[in-house]
Amino acid sequence: MRRMSRWEPDAAERLQQAAFDLYTERGYDHTTVAEIAARAGLTERTFFRHFADKREVLFAGSDQFRAALVDPVAAAPESATPLEAVAAGVEAAGSVFPALALVRRRHTLIRANPELEERELKKLASLAASLAEALRRRGVPDTAAELAAESGVSVLRIALARWIEDPAEQPWQAHVRKTMDELRCLTSEPTPAASV
Amino acid sequence: MRRMSRWEPDAAERLQQAAFDLYTERGYDHTTVAEIAARAGLTERTFFRHFADKREVLFAGSDQFRAALVDPVAAAPESATPLEAVAAGVEAAGSVFPALALVRRRHTLIRANPELEERELKKLASLAASLAEALRRRGVPDTAAELAAESGVSVLRIALARWIEDPAEQPWQAHVRKTMDELRCLTSEPTPAASV
Repeated sequence: MRRMSRWEPDAAERLQQAAFDLYTERGYDHTTVAEIAARAGLTERTFFRHFADKREVLFAGSDQFRAALVDPVAAAPESATPLEAVAAGVEAAGSVFPALALVRRRHTLIRANPELEERELKKLASLAASLAEALRRRGVPDTAAELAAESGVSVLRIALARWIEDPAEQPWQAHVRKTMDELRCLTSEPTPAASV
Repeated sequence: MRRMSRWEPDAAERLQQAAFDLYTERGYDHTTVAEIAARAGLTERTFFRHFADKREVLFAGSDQFRAALVDPVAAAPESATPLEAVAAGVEAAGSVFPALALVRRRHTLIRANPELEERELKKLASLAASLAEALRRRGVPDTAAELAAESGVSVLRIALARWIEDPAEQPWQAHVRKTMDELRCLTSEPTPAASV
Protein backbone atom coordinates (compact mmCIF):
# COMPACT_ATOMS: atom_id res chain seq x y z
CA MET A 1 0.00 0.00 0.00
CA ARG A 2 1.60 3.28 -1.06
CA ARG A 3 0.80 6.55 0.56
CA MET A 4 0.97 9.25 -2.04
CA SER A 5 -0.27 12.35 -0.30
CA ARG A 6 0.25 13.75 3.16
CA TRP A 7 -3.26 15.13 3.43
CA GLU A 8 -4.99 11.75 2.88
CA PRO A 9 -2.91 9.59 5.11
CA ASP A 10 -5.36 6.69 5.20
CA ALA A 11 -6.78 6.94 1.67
CA ALA A 12 -5.49 3.54 0.57
CA GLU A 13 -6.91 1.82 3.66
CA ARG A 14 -10.25 3.62 3.28
CA LEU A 15 -10.47 2.68 -0.40
CA GLN A 16 -9.61 -0.90 0.37
CA GLN A 17 -12.19 -1.11 3.12
CA ALA A 18 -14.85 0.41 0.85
CA ALA A 19 -13.94 -1.94 -2.00
CA PHE A 20 -14.10 -5.03 0.23
CA ASP A 21 -17.47 -3.92 1.58
CA LEU A 22 -18.90 -3.32 -1.89
CA TYR A 23 -17.44 -6.52 -3.37
CA THR A 24 -19.05 -8.46 -0.54
CA GLU A 25 -22.40 -6.63 -0.76
CA ARG A 26 -22.97 -6.60 -4.53
CA GLY A 27 -20.20 -8.77 -5.95
CA TYR A 28 -16.93 -7.79 -7.54
CA ASP A 29 -18.37 -7.65 -11.07
CA HIS A 30 -21.11 -5.22 -10.09
CA THR A 31 -18.88 -2.71 -8.37
CA THR A 32 -17.30 0.26 -10.15
CA VAL A 33 -14.27 2.33 -9.21
CA ALA A 34 -16.56 5.37 -8.96
CA GLU A 35 -18.68 3.58 -6.36
CA ILE A 36 -15.64 2.54 -4.36
CA ALA A 37 -14.32 6.10 -4.32
CA ALA A 38 -17.74 7.50 -3.34
CA ARG A 39 -18.14 5.00 -0.50
CA ALA A 40 -14.70 5.97 0.80
CA GLY A 41 -15.56 9.67 0.48
CA LEU A 42 -12.74 10.17 -2.04
CA THR A 43 -12.42 10.85 -5.77
CA GLU A 44 -11.76 8.39 -8.59
CA ARG A 45 -8.53 10.27 -9.17
CA THR A 46 -7.41 9.40 -5.69
CA PHE A 47 -8.36 5.78 -6.30
CA PHE A 48 -6.11 5.64 -9.34
CA ARG A 49 -3.25 7.25 -7.43
CA HIS A 50 -3.28 4.20 -5.18
CA PHE A 51 -4.44 1.32 -7.37
CA ALA A 52 -4.07 0.53 -11.08
CA ASP A 53 -7.55 -1.00 -11.30
CA LYS A 54 -10.26 -2.54 -9.17
CA ARG A 55 -8.52 -5.90 -9.19
CA GLU A 56 -5.38 -4.44 -7.65
CA VAL A 57 -7.23 -3.39 -4.50
CA LEU A 58 -7.16 -7.05 -3.55
CA PHE A 59 -3.44 -7.31 -4.21
CA ALA A 60 -2.26 -4.22 -2.38
CA GLY A 61 1.00 -4.73 -0.55
CA SER A 62 2.28 -7.31 -3.07
CA ASP A 63 5.75 -5.79 -3.25
CA GLN A 64 6.06 -5.72 0.49
CA PHE A 65 4.89 -9.32 0.67
CA ARG A 66 7.40 -10.38 -1.99
CA ALA A 67 10.23 -8.77 -0.03
CA ALA A 68 9.11 -10.38 3.24
CA LEU A 69 9.04 -13.77 1.50
CA VAL A 70 12.23 -13.54 -0.54
CA ASP A 71 14.66 -11.54 1.63
CA PRO A 72 14.97 -14.29 4.27
CA VAL A 73 16.00 -16.73 1.53
CA ALA A 74 19.00 -14.57 0.70
CA ALA A 75 19.72 -14.03 4.40
CA ALA A 76 19.51 -17.70 5.44
CA PRO A 77 22.74 -19.21 6.82
CA GLU A 78 25.01 -20.77 4.24
CA SER A 79 24.39 -24.18 5.76
CA ALA A 80 20.63 -23.99 5.13
CA THR A 81 19.27 -26.37 2.49
CA PRO A 82 17.20 -24.83 -0.33
CA LEU A 83 13.99 -25.96 1.31
CA GLU A 84 15.04 -24.62 4.71
CA ALA A 85 15.83 -21.24 3.16
CA VAL A 86 12.41 -21.22 1.48
CA ALA A 87 10.68 -22.30 4.69
CA ALA A 88 12.30 -19.38 6.50
CA GLY A 89 10.85 -17.05 3.87
CA VAL A 90 7.35 -18.51 4.04
CA GLU A 91 7.34 -18.26 7.84
CA ALA A 92 8.59 -14.68 7.78
CA ALA A 93 6.04 -13.62 5.15
CA GLY A 94 3.36 -14.00 7.80
CA SER A 95 4.62 -10.84 9.46
CA VAL A 96 3.15 -8.66 6.69
CA PHE A 97 -0.30 -10.26 6.58
CA PRO A 98 -3.11 -7.91 7.56
CA ALA A 99 -5.52 -8.97 10.33
CA LEU A 100 -6.89 -12.51 9.97
CA ALA A 101 -10.44 -11.23 9.43
CA LEU A 102 -9.26 -9.20 6.41
CA VAL A 103 -7.26 -12.12 5.00
CA ARG A 104 -10.37 -14.27 5.31
CA ARG A 105 -12.56 -11.76 3.45
CA ARG A 106 -9.96 -11.37 0.74
CA HIS A 107 -9.72 -15.14 0.33
CA THR A 108 -13.49 -15.51 0.01
CA LEU A 109 -13.69 -12.70 -2.55
CA ILE A 110 -10.91 -14.17 -4.69
CA ARG A 111 -12.38 -17.70 -4.63
CA ALA A 112 -15.71 -16.29 -5.84
CA ASN A 113 -14.33 -14.67 -8.99
CA PRO A 114 -12.39 -16.41 -11.80
CA GLU A 115 -10.80 -13.13 -12.93
CA LEU A 116 -9.41 -12.56 -9.45
CA GLU A 117 -8.27 -16.16 -9.14
CA GLU A 118 -6.36 -15.73 -12.38
CA ARG A 119 -4.56 -12.68 -11.06
CA GLU A 120 -3.80 -14.57 -7.84
CA LEU A 121 -2.29 -17.47 -9.80
CA LYS A 122 -0.13 -15.03 -11.73
CA LYS A 123 1.10 -13.36 -8.55
CA LEU A 124 1.92 -16.76 -7.04
CA ALA A 125 3.82 -17.82 -10.16
CA SER A 126 5.76 -14.59 -9.99
CA LEU A 127 6.55 -15.19 -6.30
CA ALA A 128 7.84 -18.66 -7.21
CA ALA A 129 10.09 -17.09 -9.86
CA SER A 130 11.48 -14.63 -7.30
CA LEU A 131 12.14 -17.42 -4.80
CA ALA A 132 13.89 -19.51 -7.46
CA GLU A 133 16.04 -16.52 -8.43
CA ALA A 134 17.04 -15.96 -4.78
CA LEU A 135 17.99 -19.64 -4.49
CA ARG A 136 20.04 -19.53 -7.70
CA ARG A 137 21.95 -16.60 -6.23
CA ARG A 138 22.79 -18.88 -3.30
CA GLY A 139 24.33 -21.28 -5.81
CA VAL A 140 21.42 -23.73 -5.93
CA PRO A 141 21.26 -25.43 -9.35
CA ASP A 142 18.38 -24.60 -11.67
CA THR A 143 16.07 -27.58 -11.26
CA ALA A 144 16.52 -27.78 -7.49
CA ALA A 145 15.91 -24.03 -7.22
CA GLU A 146 12.69 -24.24 -9.23
CA LEU A 147 11.40 -27.27 -7.35
CA ALA A 148 12.15 -25.75 -3.95
CA ALA A 149 10.56 -22.45 -5.00
CA GLU A 150 7.40 -24.13 -6.30
CA SER A 151 7.22 -26.29 -3.19
CA GLY A 152 7.50 -23.14 -1.11
CA VAL A 153 4.58 -21.54 -2.92
CA SER A 154 2.51 -24.72 -2.54
CA VAL A 155 3.22 -24.70 1.19
CA LEU A 156 2.35 -20.99 1.33
CA ARG A 157 -1.01 -21.57 -0.36
CA ILE A 158 -1.94 -24.61 1.65
CA ALA A 159 -0.79 -23.16 4.99
CA LEU A 160 -2.80 -20.02 4.20
CA ALA A 161 -5.96 -22.05 3.61
CA ARG A 162 -5.40 -23.98 6.86
CA TRP A 163 -4.63 -20.81 8.82
CA ILE A 164 -7.78 -19.13 7.58
CA GLU A 165 -9.95 -22.14 8.42
CA ASP A 166 -8.35 -22.92 11.78
CA PRO A 167 -10.98 -22.50 14.53
CA ALA A 168 -8.18 -22.64 17.14
CA GLU A 169 -6.44 -19.68 15.41
CA GLN A 170 -2.98 -21.14 15.85
CA PRO A 171 -0.24 -18.81 14.65
CA TRP A 172 0.87 -18.70 11.01
CA GLN A 173 4.27 -20.22 11.81
CA ALA A 174 2.65 -23.33 13.29
CA HIS A 175 0.69 -23.91 10.08
CA VAL A 176 3.74 -23.41 7.90
CA ARG A 177 5.80 -25.85 9.95
CA LYS A 178 3.07 -28.47 9.93
CA THR A 179 2.67 -28.18 6.16
CA MET A 180 6.45 -28.29 5.61
CA ASP A 181 6.62 -31.43 7.76
CA GLU A 182 3.89 -33.02 5.68
CA LEU A 183 5.83 -32.21 2.54
CA ARG A 184 8.90 -33.92 3.96
CA CYS A 185 6.84 -36.95 4.99
CA LEU A 186 5.30 -37.17 1.56
CA THR A 187 8.61 -37.36 -0.24
CA SER A 188 10.41 -39.52 2.31
CA GLU A 189 7.83 -42.30 2.32
CA PRO A 190 9.24 -45.69 1.37
CA THR A 191 9.38 -46.01 -2.39
CA PRO A 192 9.87 -49.75 -2.77
CA ALA A 193 10.00 -49.92 -6.56
CA ALA A 194 11.69 -46.62 -7.29
CA SER A 195 15.20 -45.24 -7.20
CA VAL A 196 16.86 -44.68 -3.84
CA MET B 1 -9.23 -32.09 -30.31
CA ARG B 2 -12.84 -32.89 -31.17
CA ARG B 3 -13.91 -33.97 -34.61
CA MET B 4 -17.33 -32.59 -35.27
CA SER B 5 -17.94 -33.37 -38.94
CA ARG B 6 -17.21 -36.39 -41.06
CA TRP B 7 -16.44 -34.37 -44.17
CA GLU B 8 -13.61 -32.34 -42.60
CA PRO B 9 -11.73 -35.08 -40.87
CA ASP B 10 -8.56 -33.07 -40.29
CA ALA B 11 -10.11 -29.63 -39.79
CA ALA B 12 -8.90 -29.25 -36.20
CA GLU B 13 -5.34 -30.20 -37.12
CA ARG B 14 -5.36 -27.86 -40.12
CA LEU B 15 -6.68 -24.99 -38.02
CA GLN B 16 -4.12 -25.64 -35.35
CA GLN B 17 -1.29 -25.76 -37.86
CA ALA B 18 -2.49 -22.52 -39.47
CA ALA B 19 -2.83 -20.82 -36.09
CA PHE B 20 0.65 -21.85 -34.96
CA ASP B 21 2.12 -20.60 -38.25
CA LEU B 22 0.35 -17.24 -38.01
CA TYR B 23 1.10 -16.78 -34.31
CA THR B 24 4.77 -17.39 -35.07
CA GLU B 25 4.83 -15.15 -38.16
CA ARG B 26 2.92 -12.12 -36.89
CA GLY B 27 2.43 -12.74 -33.21
CA TYR B 28 -0.60 -14.01 -31.33
CA ASP B 29 -2.05 -10.54 -30.74
CA HIS B 30 -2.00 -9.67 -34.43
CA THR B 31 -3.74 -12.78 -35.66
CA THR B 32 -7.51 -13.03 -36.08
CA VAL B 33 -9.74 -16.09 -36.19
CA ALA B 34 -10.75 -15.09 -39.74
CA GLU B 35 -7.10 -15.21 -40.80
CA ILE B 36 -6.56 -18.59 -39.19
CA ALA B 37 -9.61 -20.02 -40.94
CA ALA B 38 -8.55 -18.53 -44.29
CA ARG B 39 -5.02 -19.91 -43.98
CA ALA B 40 -6.46 -23.36 -43.25
CA GLY B 41 -8.85 -23.07 -46.19
CA LEU B 42 -11.85 -23.29 -43.87
CA THR B 43 -14.58 -20.97 -42.57
CA GLU B 44 -14.74 -19.09 -39.27
CA ARG B 45 -17.81 -21.15 -38.49
CA THR B 46 -15.73 -24.30 -38.73
CA PHE B 47 -13.12 -22.72 -36.47
CA PHE B 48 -15.71 -22.10 -33.79
CA ARG B 49 -17.02 -25.65 -34.11
CA HIS B 50 -13.59 -26.81 -32.93
CA PHE B 51 -12.32 -24.06 -30.64
CA ALA B 52 -14.02 -21.60 -28.30
CA ASP B 53 -11.55 -18.81 -29.13
CA LYS B 54 -8.08 -18.24 -30.52
CA ARG B 55 -6.49 -18.97 -27.16
CA GLU B 56 -8.02 -22.43 -27.04
CA VAL B 57 -6.16 -23.50 -30.18
CA LEU B 58 -3.09 -23.73 -27.98
CA PHE B 59 -4.88 -25.80 -25.39
CA ALA B 60 -6.52 -28.34 -27.66
CA GLY B 61 -6.53 -31.84 -26.21
CA SER B 62 -6.71 -30.59 -22.62
CA ASP B 63 -9.41 -33.08 -21.63
CA GLN B 64 -7.46 -35.95 -23.09
CA PHE B 65 -4.33 -34.74 -21.29
CA ARG B 66 -6.18 -34.49 -17.99
CA ALA B 67 -7.43 -38.07 -18.35
CA ALA B 68 -3.95 -39.36 -19.24
CA LEU B 69 -2.55 -37.61 -16.16
CA VAL B 70 -5.25 -38.43 -13.64
CA ASP B 71 -6.46 -41.93 -14.59
CA PRO B 72 -3.19 -43.64 -13.60
CA VAL B 73 -3.49 -42.07 -10.14
CA ALA B 74 -6.77 -43.87 -9.60
CA ALA B 75 -5.34 -47.06 -11.13
CA ALA B 76 -2.09 -47.13 -9.13
CA PRO B 77 -1.67 -50.14 -6.81
CA GLU B 78 -3.03 -49.68 -3.33
CA SER B 79 0.49 -49.86 -1.92
CA ALA B 80 1.64 -46.80 -3.93
CA THR B 81 2.38 -43.66 -1.91
CA PRO B 82 0.58 -40.46 -2.98
CA LEU B 83 3.72 -39.22 -4.70
CA GLU B 84 4.25 -42.53 -6.50
CA ALA B 85 0.68 -42.47 -7.76
CA VAL B 86 1.18 -38.91 -9.01
CA ALA B 87 4.51 -39.80 -10.60
CA ALA B 88 2.80 -42.61 -12.51
CA GLY B 89 0.31 -40.07 -13.86
CA VAL B 90 2.95 -37.55 -14.89
CA GLU B 91 4.94 -40.25 -16.69
CA ALA B 92 1.86 -41.58 -18.46
CA ALA B 93 0.73 -38.11 -19.54
CA GLY B 94 3.69 -38.05 -21.92
CA SER B 95 1.86 -40.53 -24.13
CA VAL B 96 -0.60 -37.88 -25.31
CA PHE B 97 1.96 -35.17 -26.12
CA PRO B 98 2.09 -34.24 -29.78
CA ALA B 99 5.45 -34.36 -31.59
CA LEU B 100 8.32 -32.66 -29.73
CA ALA B 101 8.64 -29.98 -32.44
CA LEU B 102 5.01 -28.97 -31.91
CA VAL B 103 5.37 -28.95 -28.13
CA ARG B 104 8.41 -26.69 -28.51
CA ARG B 105 6.55 -24.24 -30.73
CA ARG B 106 3.60 -24.17 -28.38
CA HIS B 107 5.89 -23.53 -25.40
CA THR B 108 7.60 -20.63 -27.17
CA LEU B 109 4.27 -19.08 -28.17
CA ILE B 110 2.89 -19.30 -24.64
CA ARG B 111 6.03 -17.84 -23.05
CA ALA B 112 5.78 -14.86 -25.40
CA ASN B 113 2.27 -13.83 -24.40
CA PRO B 114 1.05 -12.97 -20.89
CA GLU B 115 -2.58 -13.73 -21.79
CA LEU B 116 -1.60 -17.23 -22.88
CA GLU B 117 0.60 -17.75 -19.83
CA GLU B 118 -2.37 -16.83 -17.66
CA ARG B 119 -4.54 -19.44 -19.34
CA GLU B 120 -1.72 -21.98 -18.96
CA LEU B 121 -1.48 -21.26 -15.22
CA LYS B 122 -5.21 -21.73 -14.90
CA LYS B 123 -5.10 -25.07 -16.71
CA LEU B 124 -2.23 -26.23 -14.50
CA ALA B 125 -4.10 -25.21 -11.34
CA SER B 126 -7.10 -27.13 -12.58
CA LEU B 127 -4.93 -30.20 -13.27
CA ALA B 128 -3.58 -29.98 -9.71
CA ALA B 129 -7.15 -29.89 -8.41
CA SER B 130 -8.02 -33.01 -10.42
CA LEU B 131 -4.93 -34.84 -9.15
CA ALA B 132 -5.76 -33.89 -5.55
CA GLU B 133 -9.32 -35.11 -6.03
CA ALA B 134 -8.07 -38.46 -7.40
CA LEU B 135 -5.76 -38.82 -4.39
CA ARG B 136 -8.55 -38.00 -1.95
CA ARG B 137 -10.60 -40.76 -3.53
CA ARG B 138 -7.70 -43.11 -2.69
CA GLY B 139 -8.13 -42.08 0.93
CA VAL B 140 -5.21 -39.63 1.05
CA PRO B 141 -5.91 -36.88 3.62
CA ASP B 142 -6.55 -33.34 2.37
CA THR B 143 -3.22 -31.63 2.98
CA ALA B 144 -1.14 -34.55 1.76
CA ALA B 145 -3.33 -34.85 -1.34
CA GLU B 146 -2.93 -31.16 -2.17
CA LEU B 147 0.81 -31.16 -1.57
CA ALA B 148 1.35 -34.27 -3.67
CA ALA B 149 -0.85 -32.88 -6.45
CA GLU B 150 0.94 -29.53 -6.50
CA SER B 151 4.30 -31.29 -6.42
CA GLY B 152 3.17 -33.39 -9.36
CA VAL B 153 2.28 -30.31 -11.38
CA SER B 154 5.62 -28.69 -10.48
CA VAL B 155 7.43 -31.80 -11.69
CA LEU B 156 5.30 -31.81 -14.85
CA ARG B 157 6.19 -28.18 -15.64
CA ILE B 158 9.88 -28.54 -14.89
CA ALA B 159 10.26 -31.88 -16.67
CA LEU B 160 8.50 -30.36 -19.67
CA ALA B 161 10.96 -27.46 -19.81
CA ARG B 162 13.91 -29.87 -19.51
CA TRP B 163 12.50 -32.23 -22.13
CA ILE B 164 11.97 -29.40 -24.59
CA GLU B 165 15.50 -28.05 -24.08
CA ASP B 166 17.26 -31.41 -24.03
CA PRO B 167 19.66 -31.57 -26.99
CA ALA B 168 20.05 -35.35 -26.42
CA GLU B 169 16.25 -35.75 -26.77
CA GLN B 170 15.99 -38.26 -23.94
CA PRO B 171 12.49 -39.65 -23.52
CA TRP B 172 9.85 -37.89 -21.42
CA GLN B 173 9.91 -40.61 -18.75
CA ALA B 174 13.63 -40.09 -18.12
CA HIS B 175 13.06 -36.38 -17.46
CA VAL B 176 10.13 -37.05 -15.15
CA ARG B 177 12.11 -39.60 -13.14
CA LYS B 178 15.11 -37.30 -12.85
CA THR B 179 12.93 -34.41 -11.66
CA MET B 180 11.06 -36.65 -9.19
CA ASP B 181 14.39 -37.85 -7.82
CA GLU B 182 15.51 -34.24 -7.37
CA LEU B 183 12.31 -33.51 -5.50
CA ARG B 184 12.97 -36.42 -3.15
CA CYS B 185 16.58 -35.27 -2.62
CA LEU B 186 15.45 -31.76 -1.88
CA THR B 187 13.11 -32.78 0.89
CA SER B 188 15.28 -35.54 2.35
CA GLU B 189 18.35 -33.37 2.83
CA PRO B 190 19.52 -33.19 6.42
CA THR B 191 17.54 -30.59 8.32
CA PRO B 192 19.69 -30.18 11.40
CA ALA B 193 17.55 -27.66 13.23
CA ALA B 194 14.12 -28.88 12.15
CA SER B 195 11.78 -31.66 13.07
CA VAL B 196 12.68 -35.22 12.10
